[in-house]
Amino acid sequence: MEASRPLDALNAARNKKVIVDLKNDRQYIGKLIAFDIHINTVLDDAEEHINGELKRKIGTIFIRGDAITIIAPQ
Amino acid sequence: MEASRPLDALNAARNKKVIVDLKNDRQYIGKLIAFDIHINTVLDDAEEHINGELKRKIGTIFIRGDAITIIAPQ
Amino acid sequence: MEASRPLDALNAARNKKVIVDLKNDRQYIGKLIAFDIHINTVLDDAEEHINGELKRKIGTIFIRGDAITIIAPQ
Amino acid sequence: MEASRPLDALNAARNKKVIVDLKNDRQYIGKLIAFDIHINTVLDDAEEHINGELKRKIGTIFIRGDAITIIAPQ
Amino acid sequence: MEASRPLDALNAARNKKVIVDLKNDRQYIGKLIAFDIHINTVLDDAEEHINGELKRKIGTIFIRGDAITIIAPQ
Amino acid sequence: MEASRPLDALNAARNKKVIVDLKNDRQYIGKLIAFDIHINTVLDDAEEHINGELKRKIGTIFIRGDAITIIAPQ
Amino acid sequence: MEASRPLDALNAARNKKVIVDLKNDRQYIGKLIAFDIHINTVLDDAEEHINGELKRKIGTIFIRGDAITIIAPQ
Repeated sequence: MEASRPLDALNAARNKKVIVDLKNDRQYIGKLIAFDIHINTVLDDAEEHINGELKRKIGTIFIRGDAITIIAPQ
Repeated sequence: MEASRPLDALNAARNKKVIVDLKNDRQYIGKLIAFDIHINTVLDDAEEHINGELKRKIGTIFIRGDAITIIAPQ
Repeated sequence: MEASRPLDALNAARNKKVIVDLKNDRQYIGKLIAFDIHINTVLDDAEEHINGELKRKIGTIFIRGDAITIIAPQ
Repeated sequence: MEASRPLDALNAARNKKVIVDLKNDRQYIGKLIAFDIHINTVLDDAEEHINGELKRKIGTIFIRGDAITIIAPQ
Repeated sequence: MEASRPLDALNAARNKKVIVDLKNDRQYIGKLIAFDIHINTVLDDAEEHINGELKRKIGTIFIRGDAITIIAPQ
Repeated sequence: MEASRPLDALNAARNKKVIVDLKNDRQYIGKLIAFDIHINTVLDDAEEHINGELKRKIGTIFIRGDAITIIAPQ
Repeated sequence: MEASRPLDALNAARNKKVIVDLKNDRQYIGKLIAFDIHINTVLDDAEEHINGELKRKIGTIFIRGDAITIIAPQ
């Protein structure tokens, strides 16, 4: 991967499965549909995990950027 | 869903039932009436849940954007 | 209620009784007198509640917007 | 009180005794001398209270706005 | 003291001894040398106190504004 | 190293291995691919460590700048 | 020291040894190489201390400004 700006890495992950970790230790896994410069992020086919355990199947989810610590494409 | 920007996903959920999770572990479920770029959000026919338990029926509620972690259309 | 922007919901609640929840789990109940785009808010005839118990009768109160999680008209 | 903007309520309290509550549960009681749009606030003849107990007599005190939750004129 | 803006109170305290309380419960006492609109603050001949106990003699110290709750001239 | 601006130090670490510590005590170690003025950061070949123990091999990771405390080139 | 602005004090400490305390109670001691208006800071020959104990020798370190509480030249 040769990315000169951080958002390029998110762009490369569009429509792919990503893991999103939040400051409150929740984790959302789903297909990356959209994001903006605040890192507000939308996933599709999303699942919520807490401590590695599946808690909820959510479908579409909007995540507020400032709640996020990391986004990892899979 | 094909959304190029995160707020498109919220627009698509207008007048539909959504779950809003807050940083303080409260959850509000209601009809999405309005939101802005700060993610300040208004729900109608809202209920407050804590740890999955219904705590209050609230009617209309204004939620300050920076208190929110996720919004999930149902 | 048909509101296109979140602050419309607060405007509709002016001079009416509202509940304001804070991030520090305090709750203020009073008549909504004023608010601005930061959600700085002024209540009149306000009461402070902690864990559902009335703690203080306050009269007029200025609440800093970023301390607020929700505002619910009654 | 008829205030259209939140800072009007603070203006009306100038040179009067106010209670200022902070996010760290400290409370300052004194005469309101000055404030700005960040709600940076100066009190005169101030006292610090913790859990309702007088801890320090301080005289003049500058309080950084973002540390404040509420200001209540007395 | 007749101050119309909060920073006037800090200006009046320049080159005088002040107490600076931080959000993390540390306290710095020293001569106020400089401050800016973010309340970034420099003290000279500073001491760090924790729970009222002298911990370190520091000399010059730069304090980041957003770590500060109050500044009290002595 | 002679750097006049902090981001010069990050520029010098591009394509090199760095340690990134987060406010939530997670640590990511990987090759620095990209960063921006918010310190949003992308690592490649990244590993997540908690309390010094390897938890996950992640590959590419986007880290939101405001979650970061330090970045140390190795 | 006669400084009219807080950053002058940091400028005077360039290439000198400083102590940087963080909100998460970590402490970095090293030579101040660079800083900017956000107080993003770079140290060289840095050591990490926790509770007064040396934990890591780090070499060059970039510290995100908003994680910092104080910077003390030695």
